[in-house]
Amino acid sequence: MEDIQENIQFQLTDELIEKVEILIEDQKDNDLNTLLKEYHHADIAEILDDLDLDDAVYVIKLLDSETTSEILMELDEDIREKILGNLSTKEIAEEVEELDTDDAADMIAELPEERQADVISQIEDEEHREEIQELLAYDEDTAGGLMAKELVKVYETWTVAGCLRRIRGQAKDVTRVHSVYVVDKQDKLIGRLSLKDLITSKSDQKIADIAKDNVDWVNVHDDVEDVARVMAKYDLEAIPVVDNNQVLLGRITIDDIIDVIREEADKDYQLAAGISQDVEADDSILQLTRARLPWLFLGLIGGVGAFLIMEGFHDAFEKYAVLFFFTPLIAAMAGNVGVQSSAIIVQGLANDDIKGSVNNRLIKEMLLAALNGTILALFLFLFVWVTKGDFYTALAISVSLIAVIIVAGLIGTFVPLFLNKRGIDPAIATGPFITTSNDIFGILIYFWIAKLILGI
Amino acid sequence: MEDIQENIQFQLTDELIEKVEILIEDQKDNDLNTLLKEYHHADIAEILDDLDLDDAVYVIKLLDSETTSEILMELDEDIREKILGNLSTKEIAEEVEELDTDDAADMIAELPEERQADVISQIEDEEHREEIQELLAYDEDTAGGLMAKELVKVYETWTVAGCLRRIRGQAKDVTRVHSVYVVDKQDKLIGRLSLKDLITSKSDQKIADIAKDNVDWVNVHDDVEDVARVMAKYDLEAIPVVDNNQVLLGRITIDDIIDVIREEADKDYQLAAGISQDVEADDSILQLTRARLPWLFLGLIGGVGAFLIMEGFHDAFEKYAVLFFFTPLIAAMAGNVGVQSSAIIVQGLANDDIKGSVNNRLIKEMLLAALNGTILALFLFLFVWVTKGDFYTALAISVSLIAVIIVAGLIGTFVPLFLNKRGIDPAIATGPFITTSNDIFGILIYFWIAKLILGI
Repeated sequence: MEDIQENIQFQLTDELIEKVEILIEDQKDNDLNTLLKEYHHADIAEILDDLDLDDAVYVIKLLDSETTSEILMELDEDIREKILGNLSTKEIAEEVEELDTDDAADMIAELPEERQADVISQIEDEEHREEIQELLAYDEDTAGGLMAKELVKVYETWTVAGCLRRIRGQAKDVTRVHSVYVVDKQDKLIGRLSLKDLITSKSDQKIADIAKDNVDWVNVHDDVEDVARVMAKYDLEAIPVVDNNQVLLGRITIDDIIDVIREEADKDYQLAAGISQDVEADDSILQLTRARLPWLFLGLIGGVGAFLIMEGFHDAFEKYAVLFFFTPLIAAMAGNVGVQSSAIIVQGLANDDIKGSVNNRLIKEMLLAALNGTILALFLFLFVWVTKGDFYTALAISVSLIAVIIVAGLIGTFVPLFLNKRGIDPAIATGPFITTSNDIFGILIYFWIAKLILGI
Repeated sequence: MEDIQENIQFQLTDELIEKVEILIEDQKDNDLNTLLKEYHHADIAEILDDLDLDDAVYVIKLLDSETTSEILMELDEDIREKILGNLSTKEIAEEVEELDTDDAADMIAELPEERQADVISQIEDEEHREEIQELLAYDEDTAGGLMAKELVKVYETWTVAGCLRRIRGQAKDVTRVHSVYVVDKQDKLIGRLSLKDLITSKSDQKIADIAKDNVDWVNVHDDVEDVARVMAKYDLEAIPVVDNNQVLLGRITIDDIIDVIREEADKDYQLAAGISQDVEADDSILQLTRARLPWLFLGLIGGVGAFLIMEGFHDAFEKYAVLFFFTPLIAAMAGNVGVQSSAIIVQGLANDDIKGSVNNRLIKEMLLAALNGTILALFLFLFVWVTKGDFYTALAISVSLIAVIIVAGLIGTFVPLFLNKRGIDPAIATGPFITTSNDIFGILIYFWIAKLILGI
């Protein structure tokens, strides 16, 4: 137990990578095995992320499949795909054999279609194979696509002592036992028990008498985001999954939900920043371009739109050049306000705390925008009046600014609410989409109001 | 067990709210109690969120403190604060008595300082009081501020049978037993056991023989974000917290970590959208103004900067008016590119997968920006050339666009990396901050290059 003083925080160093590379080059398999055995599989995955593909494949082939299956699941998806491409279907089947059913199904689903059947047919454990096939049939965005078949199930007619005896058998396959699920003769979920309840009950008590009947559950076809919300709201660490007849099919654990929450937050964040598709800083330039260029193109079109509007007011330039010099300010304010109001709506929708009617929300946003707009316009008015000495120009620009901010706030509020109502992910309404449309509307409103006030 | 066919998804309806309001008005306490008993405390919290303050206080005073303490912890912070303001310190102490130490400490920490000591002194359970006082001493952003004192601890010298006997006593205070922590005579953490291990071991075995010594832990002063990263990386559902001498102090469970992850993601998202402070869509207009106005003001200053630059190039207007009409496009592209590149860096830093040197990253971003910029500039060039028929103006605008995009990408990459290195949250570099500075730099570079090419 001498390791314990080492902190858990693993630090990947160049020295360690180099050490591993040298051991691979010299084919010192025993030393490599001994070295890597000291690390958690999540840490070994980080090491493999940094190795050449050939070296990574070497390590995977060297270590036993109990360890490597866990390492593979921790790797970046791209790297896992490449490594699996270098393993035979037999070797992949051996990895799959070691994984829990949910991870096993995920790994197989990532394979090219022509290899999938091959791998499945080589899984020796028949029950494991059938369970994986069942899981592969569910949509990956549903509870069925996330659940594992591994769980501990007891019948309501058993006693505590009998239960503990049988659990000893079942629990070997279940990494973590959160709850013991109680079912009736038809395998319908009717209650649950914690291990603590079992341990603290008398051994001759009937399960039916000590089981809690307020068990939470989700349907196998429920959306994973709904499952995440339910588990977070009720602080659940695992939730059983049932079919339409209430028959217990599997369970979802909180660690899978954390991934769902993270991915969802990352996706919303990227959309708000104008990045489509799931990319990471370490992806290739081509992947990053594909994710970023479409939104930039949208911005380009918006810019051309702004150009056309300004050209339409060309004649006013001689007298009111100052108006044109403030267009970047107007565009920036319209964009910023739009992003602020859409972000707050998108986040509220994601956290499920948008209550009340759309009209009330639009009125509130209008008041808020009017307040912010008036404060900002006052500063701008003073600046223009003092530096340019022209009261009406200053007035025109400031009044326009207020109008632009109010419209931008309303668009930012309305669009995500509208998309959400139509079943479209409101997060796409944030970022470049709102910025671009608000740029155009903003500049149009600006010149239009300026024209009214100045009589251009 | 007849409820079980109801789905877990609670739907808050106007009818339910009205029903509750009528029962409160008529003071039908028994009926109200019976009605609310059917709901989970998280659902009752949602009901209270929608009631008047007086009604909410009425419900809290009516229900027993075992339920209400849980309800209070689920409420929005603002509403909880208001309700606690309507309870006596004695009543609050009763709520605190029912809570786990981590929630109890959080609730007390939210009270006005002058009430805190009063509440603490009225907690009857001496051990509970002392543990809460201990927790209140830790910084809320550290493991100590997040941990609970409730855990199950066994000594290495005990046998499995003795252990199970004692656990029955300790476990009553612990809502969920994830792991049993093994300590030596000095209470130093030396290993762990799952309940499953205990159940599946022979009753005369020594704990020291079956305990796993590879227990993960965090130091009481570790940052909560680091704790979250460690727990997510290693898929932990609970982690023990130790002091500098390895003495076991408490444990952190995964449900608290989910809140940390969510808050962190929400905060980053809001910063990227130009919203400081933690606000929700339902906050008051004043709160929302305070969170949004500063960033808008920054945008205003940026816009004034852009105005000053354009005024500086005023003389070029007569001949090259078209240049000025493209400034919103230039500003928008600079802003969008800057947000994209900063967002990907901020997210990479948050997920701890930014590797390699800053220089390599800047070179990569430059190549990426050059690629995107060239594609976009080609379209813009053709548009301007065809519509205006002026080759050199088209060239000047397009070349400037490429330069602006490259600089914007570099600023977006460099600023968050730089802030992170200086220990400042890189997320503040996203959103309005990047947009505004890129607007100014972009327009400056644009006119400067146009001047070079066109010889203005």
